[in-house]
Amino acid sequence: MEKYRVTFLPDQKEVEVNEEALLIEAAEKAGVYLNSLCGGEGVCGKCRVQIIKGNAKVDGNSVTFFTKEEIEKVYTLACQTRVRENLEILIPPESRIEEEQILGESIENQRKNWRESPPIHYSDPDWVSLHKRPNDPASLFEPLTNKIYIELPKPTIDDNIPDSGRMVRELRRKLKYPSYEITLPCLQDLFLKIRRSDWKITATLFRHNEMGQILQIEEGDTADRNYGAAVDVGTTTVVTQLVDLKTGKVIGVEGNHNLQAHYGEDVLSRIAYVCGKGSLDLLQKAVVENINRLIEILARTKEIKVEDITCIVAAGNTTMSHILLGLMPCSIREDPYIPTVDLYPPISAKEIGVHINPQGIIHVLPSIASYIGGDTVAGILACDMANRPETTCLIDIGTNGEIVIGNNEWLLSCSASAGPAFEGGDTKWGMRATRGAIEKVEINGARVLYETIGKVKPRGICGSGLIDLIYGLARSKILEIDAKFSPSLQDKRIVRGENGMEYIVAFPEETETGEALTIAQTDIDNIMRSKAAIFAAIKSLIDYAGLTFDQLEKIYVAGGFGNYLNIEKAVGIGLLPDIPRKRIEFVGNSSLMGARMALLSFQVFEKAVGISQSITNIELSKFALFADEYMASLYLPHIDRERLFPSVKF
Amino acid sequence: MEKYRVTFLPDQKEVEVNEEALLIEAAEKAGVYLNSLCGGEGVCGKCRVQIIKGNAKVDGNSVTFFTKEEIEKVYTLACQTRVRENLEILIPPESRIEEEQILGESIENQRKNWRESPPIHYSDPDWVSLHKRPNDPASLFEPLTNKIYIELPKPTIDDNIPDSGRMVRELRRKLKYPSYEITLPCLQDLFLKIRRSDWKITATLFRHNEMGQILQIEEGDTADRNYGAAVDVGTTTVVTQLVDLKTGKVIGVEGNHNLQAHYGEDVLSRIAYVCGKGSLDLLQKAVVENINRLIEILARTKEIKVEDITCIVAAGNTTMSHILLGLMPCSIREDPYIPTVDLYPPISAKEIGVHINPQGIIHVLPSIASYIGGDTVAGILACDMANRPETTCLIDIGTNGEIVIGNNEWLLSCSASAGPAFEGGDTKWGMRATRGAIEKVEINGARVLYETIGKVKPRGICGSGLIDLIYGLARSKILEIDAKFSPSLQDKRIVRGENGMEYIVAFPEETETGEALTIAQTDIDNIMRSKAAIFAAIKSLIDYAGLTFDQLEKIYVAGGFGNYLNIEKAVGIGLLPDIPRKRIEFVGNSSLMGARMALLSFQVFEKAVGISQSITNIELSKFALFADEYMASLYLPHIDRERLFPSVKF
Repeated sequence: MEKYRVTFLPDQKEVEVNEEALLIEAAEKAGVYLNSLCGGEGVCGKCRVQIIKGNAKVDGNSVTFFTKEEIEKVYTLACQTRVRENLEILIPPESRIEEEQILGESIENQRKNWRESPPIHYSDPDWVSLHKRPNDPASLFEPLTNKIYIELPKPTIDDNIPDSGRMVRELRRKLKYPSYEITLPCLQDLFLKIRRSDWKITATLFRHNEMGQILQIEEGDTADRNYGAAVDVGTTTVVTQLVDLKTGKVIGVEGNHNLQAHYGEDVLSRIAYVCGKGSLDLLQKAVVENINRLIEILARTKEIKVEDITCIVAAGNTTMSHILLGLMPCSIREDPYIPTVDLYPPISAKEIGVHINPQGIIHVLPSIASYIGGDTVAGILACDMANRPETTCLIDIGTNGEIVIGNNEWLLSCSASAGPAFEGGDTKWGMRATRGAIEKVEINGARVLYETIGKVKPRGICGSGLIDLIYGLARSKILEIDAKFSPSLQDKRIVRGENGMEYIVAFPEETETGEALTIAQTDIDNIMRSKAAIFAAIKSLIDYAGLTFDQLEKIYVAGGFGNYLNIEKAVGIGLLPDIPRKRIEFVGNSSLMGARMALLSFQVFEKAVGISQSITNIELSKFALFADEYMASLYLPHIDRERLFPSVKF
Repeated sequence: MEKYRVTFLPDQKEVEVNEEALLIEAAEKAGVYLNSLCGGEGVCGKCRVQIIKGNAKVDGNSVTFFTKEEIEKVYTLACQTRVRENLEILIPPESRIEEEQILGESIENQRKNWRESPPIHYSDPDWVSLHKRPNDPASLFEPLTNKIYIELPKPTIDDNIPDSGRMVRELRRKLKYPSYEITLPCLQDLFLKIRRSDWKITATLFRHNEMGQILQIEEGDTADRNYGAAVDVGTTTVVTQLVDLKTGKVIGVEGNHNLQAHYGEDVLSRIAYVCGKGSLDLLQKAVVENINRLIEILARTKEIKVEDITCIVAAGNTTMSHILLGLMPCSIREDPYIPTVDLYPPISAKEIGVHINPQGIIHVLPSIASYIGGDTVAGILACDMANRPETTCLIDIGTNGEIVIGNNEWLLSCSASAGPAFEGGDTKWGMRATRGAIEKVEINGARVLYETIGKVKPRGICGSGLIDLIYGLARSKILEIDAKFSPSLQDKRIVRGENGMEYIVAFPEETETGEALTIAQTDIDNIMRSKAAIFAAIKSLIDYAGLTFDQLEKIYVAGGFGNYLNIEKAVGIGLLPDIPRKRIEFVGNSSLMGARMALLSFQVFEKAVGISQSITNIELSKFALFADEYMASLYLPHIDRERLFPSVKF
């Protein structure tokens, strides 16, 4: 088979591939990461590239994604284009996943980035370790893996119990586990280590159910060197916190884009990819690679040994959790939508290729249902919903909106398929909350003020920007109550485009691409469907519980909005309920915080198991009134503004 | 390095070895198994071979083991002789381990051998499976691994629990385990297997503590194909029973000589070998090879798949159990004689290279102390000592004599270092109970009647033969009460040899070697030390318990006596206590039976754990009166015959 060289610009990355290789595969091999919403099906048009030199073979009807000018400039979809000679390919900014941008920065910059403008906001990041609620079992500090230094009395004829019993006797004095179990490799090490160290050893124990599993024996006192990692396995990004398990303190955090993105942007397209082409292994390896890279960077910059990381707690949606563990996710998207498992057994990290201590453990937080995963359970933990008598609500806005309502006596959950509008999908200029995304918008007459992430020229607009934009358009009466462009309006920013009316957010000279950044009626319709689905889900759940919104002590809002969400405007467009604004809190990545809490407290992990098994999950498709609620929510802010949104005045 | 060819006669087995290889290593490589009591130290003189052709290099002072004639015929010790040219070596019968003899026979003969003259005698081999004592928890039939066929209701929107929970729900209806855990490989299989089989699957579960571990999922109904193996890992022989775990029936049994014998005959020499030269791995592999061979033969002849064997329960002394699991046994022979572990964790068979089902388990019965192992625990199970109100006694006679006394309320144990006299060591013509061994002796005036195993010319005399012989010599007044040859006696069989007085058991023309088979005063002294150590241990334990012998409802005698032990004569020489003979029962291999009982009943395994943790083990070295008892027992039958052996009349 012939081999050809493909060079990717502007990075000048070169790779050799076989004849007939897809460009998207070549890009992956070269370490260039392209957008792909549909998982390589040729239907989302996100993996646009330009062929600068050479000829390629184009499959499918992808021509429909390009203008006449673009076709002349040899634009093509990387997932539909095959190599048949040496090529030079230019990746336009909009097709690029900002992987290199994050990882390519110097370590020092990366750390600074995460520290100075953390994408993760905690109301109180040290909650667990500070023992703020000493009477609350959930606040007990007891990491899943403990290192215990013990000095064993030497055996005598009067005290002649075996080595292992001798060790367990001392452990029992320090840790009150009901029972202990030792792995064979540990037992095989015991004889020599115990004697070489003059009967002074450190044992690493993993707590699971009633059992303390002895994972490792080290000579001498190594109890100071015990680390864990909390991992938020998001569909889009993977974020890892390195935690000192001796003190409970976070000592570092790093994130990267989920490498599975090449196989589809959202969970549904990734499931389709896995179950259609049968390459679960490929996706599992991708996310394991994400985790390994993060851990390696954290270990290097924090100057700790990877072998001293003894436990990982991971939180992810049900699909991400399944793929991480190598479990087929296919039934998740087939009626009646059941996963393989909800309570994931703790496993040896090396079983799935994660590089930490060879005996180290990965424990994935339990799921609730196919579309309510361990990330939601983590959110419930982070917001302490299941321990408090007052009723609170957690709203996680993503392609799937997850809603939880409850208190220490009951919990209800549901999920609504909201579409990716708030995550950068379903709109022409939508993008994720990364560099170049407009995250804040204010419309002031004919002027549009906006801010981009990284303070650079805009490349697109992310979820929080879209909320601001819709709010601004409604307030300026450019959009009517039914979210349609007002037909009578005269505005130089309102033009007629290919898909009907469009509003120009940024003129060509302002943008990175040199094209006008617009929002069309079809884009607005998609955003309205997303916000209606989420609000209808919240309203349905509140009704199911027999409550009204003002009975909610707190609404926690989570989701991929980066650093920023304007609560006032989110209420204004009818995305969030109209309750006093100080009772609504944007919690950012509650998944990561919940994972860390479970890592640092066996009782919190047990609580998570209890939550996953006792929560009542409502299938909205079975809930008769949901469709009515949805219809009533397709307005700005709602068809029943007087009763439901009394404080919203445009 | 030069290579040379060594040919072993009479089998004509050839092997190529490096220059300077030891002959004993060459023999092992050729599959010729030589006796070695001392583990290659050159001090036991058991690995005698004759160099027929070629010259070799002899280390050490091994010449002292040979007569002038033997030295002229170029006899040497294989463990002290190094190859430096091509050689032809004759293995004399006395140096050979009868490994090939057993394994070389046709399978049909082997089975016949085991079936027709079983070396293992059970009072009731089907005790466990027949549920004879329905009220006795120990008789409950519940194999450690169970295969359960279940048909799962297909998921619907109203019954949408995950695959794994769906499976566990059905399992819970059939098995009352407190909790269930599933391994990752199983979970990874679940999605496809459950659907390919139309939701009809068979799960294999291993019961451990309160947990049912799901080891394997098979499509359809395979519950009929579930087998286990009970393995008695003896220092000398390894015996395996194949058991149908569905019915509890034994379907085959095979045995072979422990391949560790090349590294030392008894546990002490094997520990010395491991801890001196650091080759634990070699000894572990040897016994794993024993087990793999037996399982392979059993599977082949019984026409079952090795993959359908899901569990092994092994019983062995503490050293054998340690070596099997790859645990250093060194501290067992160092003051204060503690092992690494007494409760062995259940492990995956593949972790130590045993070939059964890839997910299959090996669970080793717990030990009590360094010199009271899982084989003794198995004996307690087999004799049902711990469940019955009446007090009974178990005496296992070997290089180490193990004694247990007790009932359902208490158990006492001790071990006495008895020496290998009853197992063929410590006497010039002693041998194990294999082909050619004299196992019965009767002295009738000048005539000596004897029977050999296999009805062939005698090659030596085994433990039961020695008991008969000493009894005969005492009864004929050839030995006096202090076990010394009567000085005044005239008998053509009594001669003066190199080591003082000798009694000729078989004249040269009767024996296989053509030499007279004799017992010398030194041999008798060694036997007397063995029997005195064992009786003194029994007596000490009885005194410690505050009992007298007549309070024992039963004495069970176990040990490597082959098929036969004359109870009357064993009492007669003062080896066993003088109680009514019908209360003394020879139970043969109680270790294997106990292992099978534990394999077939989780409750029995739990009982074994309870026994190992609750039994009181007495250190005889700390027991002041033991030395006196020992001195008083160096007589035939005892210095206090009137009180302790009233029924013995010579």
